[in-house]
Amino acid sequence: MDEVTVHSPATVSNVVCGFDCLGFALAEPFDLITVRRIEQPTIRIINRDDYGLPTEPSKNVAGVALLAMLQVMEASFGFEVEITKGIKPGSGIGSSSASSCGAVAAANHLLGNPFTKAELVGFAMEGEKLASGAKHADNVAPCIFGGFTLVRSLDPLDIVSLTYPQLFATVIHPQIEIKTSEARAILPTSVPLADAVRNWSNLGAFVAGLVNRDYELISKSMVDVIVEPARSPLITNFDEVKAAGIGAGALGGGISGSGPSIFMISSSLETAQAVRRAMKEVYSSTGIEFNLYVSGIEREGVRIV
Amino acid sequence: MDEVTVHSPATVSNVVCGFDCLGFALAEPFDLITVRRIEQPTIRIINRDDYGLPTEPSKNVAGVALLAMLQVMEASFGFEVEITKGIKPGSGIGSSSASSCGAVAAANHLLGNPFTKAELVGFAMEGEKLASGAKHADNVAPCIFGGFTLVRSLDPLDIVSLTYPQLFATVIHPQIEIKTSEARAILPTSVPLADAVRNWSNLGAFVAGLVNRDYELISKSMVDVIVEPARSPLITNFDEVKAAGIGAGALGGGISGSGPSIFMISSSLETAQAVRRAMKEVYSSTGIEFNLYVSGIEREGVRIV
Repeated sequence: MDEVTVHSPATVSNVVCGFDCLGFALAEPFDLITVRRIEQPTIRIINRDDYGLPTEPSKNVAGVALLAMLQVMEASFGFEVEITKGIKPGSGIGSSSASSCGAVAAANHLLGNPFTKAELVGFAMEGEKLASGAKHADNVAPCIFGGFTLVRSLDPLDIVSLTYPQLFATVIHPQIEIKTSEARAILPTSVPLADAVRNWSNLGAFVAGLVNRDYELISKSMVDVIVEPARSPLITNFDEVKAAGIGAGALGGGISGSGPSIFMISSSLETAQAVRRAMKEVYSSTGIEFNLYVSGIEREGVRIV
Repeated sequence: MDEVTVHSPATVSNVVCGFDCLGFALAEPFDLITVRRIEQPTIRIINRDDYGLPTEPSKNVAGVALLAMLQVMEASFGFEVEITKGIKPGSGIGSSSASSCGAVAAANHLLGNPFTKAELVGFAMEGEKLASGAKHADNVAPCIFGGFTLVRSLDPLDIVSLTYPQLFATVIHPQIEIKTSEARAILPTSVPLADAVRNWSNLGAFVAGLVNRDYELISKSMVDVIVEPARSPLITNFDEVKAAGIGAGALGGGISGSGPSIFMISSSLETAQAVRRAMKEVYSSTGIEFNLYVSGIEREGVRIV
């Protein structure tokens, strides 16, 4: 095998009540990433898009993830990586994760799959550390595993795949910039115990709702009294967009990752389209440019094209 | 129907990672409660045990719960309640909940079941308020519903019944006194966000473990970095008992409710018996008297005898 090309999905992390642990993969948008083995013990990055991302391996999330993999292997060879980003950087739907996960998953396949999915998550987390300053797995886990994932523990890394009913996501990406590091800095360092209890009660119920395919419970549990109140003021018309989405029939929704994207989930494609129209109407009046996506849940995660 | 007698189970609340929301019902020990309708619009309490609990309705948890029910009904009649407690007051396995839930469930049956289970939880919570100074439902919910329950929200009251695999509990009740109000006062009023995240990640995983009947995940998720470190110093030899229980094969365990009882759960009766022996051995050296229970999970909750 000379090269492997993968389809690497966007992901929604936090999912309202699961800050820093819950996430799911989107069928769209996605990146296309091709990895080739090269003789030289280095990483060569070729960007096939107009985002002007760094090509120096140590400054590129895919490069950092691949370097971590090569280091573990004590490899004497390297990789050339060609990245076509369909996921806009800084959108809050796991753009950096898609790059780093896609790169390591493609490289793993090229080498005959010496690494487990959990190990790939570990390498990709090095990319997250570069992107946000913190090692976290709530985007990389669903990107690698697909579907809904819960990161039970970071050390040791323990990822739980959750079953779920038919769901469709509607995502609006307003073209405003929120740096992940800034969105982290705005969070409280400590929270009232009573608020924490409300949050874990809702997360427990949300997980039960997913696994039991209980749409009503999923809907009721999508409540966040800790992170959303702190971050939502950073996003123009957040409350209006959320209310419009729920008014159009969405089960619930909120900030995707650290924003600025806002996601909604619905039980049918028809509802997700109605939610799209409702969200679009709110944002059309703001003068801010935006992208809109309606997408199923990506069951598989990164996959070979 | 002249009278109704019910079997009202002990319950374990918090369950390590589910502080203030999670609980399950024990097959043993239990209270026996008989309720009779009387002409006078009052509550008459007869205690058939040696615990010397108050008989004045407004100072007795069963009395308070029944008064709440009568008030909603604008009733012109009353109840006589005969209570035989099998659950020692102050044990931390839901003694007050068993009294109040048993009383309202028996009265409800006597009246032809005008109230839903959720409404009975609401009445019984008035008893919890009397007992601990705070309205909470993590013991009354499993006492009424049986099995494992998650209180998603107190206002509005929303209780989620969780499915679960075969499990057996081992409970040790050291004869030391910990007042619920004191055990509450020792808790931090706020917690680091990172600790809260660890806790909700574990609770989410625990719920997934229960519903998916995944013993390994149940075991790994029984971690509490918030409440157990604060409360466990109140319980003599807590760490040793817990370590002995896990060493004997328990999936996990911790403080039952606000203590002093310590519970362990195991996947088989045989293991639960081995856990019993291990816990007994640790406590035998302390000079403190204790009771030990090995019990299945009570599926039904309060039931008519």
